Amino acid sequence: MSLPKHVRLVEVGPRDGLQNEAQPISVADKVRLVDDLTEAGLSYIEVGSFVSPKWVPQMAGSAEVFAGIRQRPGVTYAALAPNLRGLEDALAAGVKEVAVFAAASEAFSQRNINCSISESLTRFEPIMDAARSHGVRVRGYVSCVLGCPYEGKVSAEQVAPVARALHDMGCYEVSLGDTIGTGTAGDTRRLFEVVSKQVPREQLAGHFHDTYGQALANVYASLLEGINVFDSSVAGLGGCPYAKGATGNIATEDVLYLLQGLGIDSGIDLDRLIAAGQRISTVLGRANGSRVARARTAG
Amino acid sequence: MSLPKHVRLVEVGPRDGLQNEAQPISVADKVRLVDDLTEAGLSYIEVGSFVSPKWVPQMAGSAEVFAGIRQRPGVTYAALAPNLRGLEDALAAGVKEVAVFAAASEAFSQRNINCSISESLTRFEPIMDAARSHGVRVRGYVSCVLGCPYEGKVSAEQVAPVARALHDMGCYEVSLGDTIGTGTAGDTRRLFEVVSKQVPREQLAGHFHDTYGQALANVYASLLEGINVFDSSVAGLGGCPYAKGATGNIATEDVLYLLQGLGIDSGIDLDRLIAAGQRISTVLGRANGSRVARARTAG
Repeated sequence: MSLPKHVRLVEVGPRDGLQNEAQPISVADKVRLVDDLTEAGLSYIEVGSFVSPKWVPQMAGSAEVFAGIRQRPGVTYAALAPNLRGLEDALAAGVKEVAVFAAASEAFSQRNINCSISESLTRFEPIMDAARSHGVRVRGYVSCVLGCPYEGKVSAEQVAPVARALHDMGCYEVSLGDTIGTGTAGDTRRLFEVVSKQVPREQLAGHFHDTYGQALANVYASLLEGINVFDSSVAGLGGCPYAKGATGNIATEDVLYLLQGLGIDSGIDLDRLIAAGQRISTVLGRANGSRVARARTAG
Repeated sequence: MSLPKHVRLVEVGPRDGLQNEAQPISVADKVRLVDDLTEAGLSYIEVGSFVSPKWVPQMAGSAEVFAGIRQRPGVTYAALAPNLRGLEDALAAGVKEVAVFAAASEAFSQRNINCSISESLTRFEPIMDAARSHGVRVRGYVSCVLGCPYEGKVSAEQVAPVARALHDMGCYEVSLGDTIGTGTAGDTRRLFEVVSKQVPREQLAGHFHDTYGQALANVYASLLEGINVFDSSVAGLGGCPYAKGATGNIATEDVLYLLQGLGIDSGIDLDRLIAAGQRISTVLGRANGSRVARARTAG
């Protein structure tokens, strides 16, 4: 039960978060958010997504966002590039790291990206090749690792081959996502126990949603399993598209507060992070989804 | 790291929860809440408090609530009795189990109950004697076990002697409360490691507030320390009096969801519990503070 000394937080608010917010948001506000996050000390920020705005209107203007942000040396600014066209657009925008995503559930894969899991993996091959030839690193996501909105429970044994396939085709890190937030701490432990037999622990990340209030307990369970990279979203940006009105992404502030309490370094300044989350919450006219931010700013 | 097979949840919503809600609530609604909780399978319900209504207006009518509820055999219906007058009133109302509370922080003790920690313990002695002579069990609370709104961090070494004193004077169980919710999982582990040298683990309980989003991770850390009794509040009733607008008690539904995921038995029916929480939330005209309830009832 020895905890990692350092944790990297992958800030997904500007992409996974905003993508699931109902309100439109300007390029200028997105740029400001990313710059605020850089100032707060995040070392990895998922800035946008190169997909058709027909499918994901919130991600329109990702190239303009990349052009507008101040990139600090040593910080990774990444984008989702789900297909070759997206990768080409990302490369044209100067993006140095991209992400692809597969699902651990066959039904989710079919309904979300209109193909089987194995077809989705095959489609990634030209993306991997093109990224490699441009010196661009690729991060892999696996969604529905603990549960699926259509299939219910998902076993670690379903997740392992998908994570392994992404790893084998060249993803330097694979993030395991509890997309609907139904997983609990025991499931999380078992997930990493099983998947780490196929992909080294140092190349796995945890991505938890707080829909059932379990996300931070799952982060703690993952830390005890030696996982030291977690995805999170400032101010808890992003609802849950499968349960309207429910909570989605775990708030970066709340994870950081846990890490600080455990004496784990991440290089992030909590006060600046809270300020960044407050600002974007105000822009969106929504309540701040971070409990730490609410407690710190409450009267 | 072997988890307990069975956990007892101490439902504090009707007392600790309602006490911190702003809206007045009728005796009939309180009775209905307790009856709903009995139906949901809770084995321990803190029903009310025998204190002067001058100080805690929300707890007025506790005797009427006790007279109105349907008591199921095997279920404990308890009340707070902070002084001898309160105990006498509780006894007159037929209460079979009471609770007393001390603080681990000197400043909190002075400001909250107007006396030092050691004076507060001395004042409990006649309560313990009277309770014993009536065959009434006494549960002890220690507040501010991980942090104090006036003193900041509180060490496990400050908590241990207070817990030990309550144990030694006859409290059959001592509940350690993170009153302001600032504690994290590592602090929680250390708390139980240290205090369990003075009071057996089987006689300790955890009482966590979710003000900083840490409560469920703290419950999980406690389970890993062998703690198997937790206080929680249906629908997360009760705000945080030290940070207006912030979250207080951990929601019973969210703890139960974790326990079920871990395969730990508690005898509670989640659906009925959610229904009980939804009903009282509607009565109070407040949002349901349980994420599980929100996810389950969302569209």
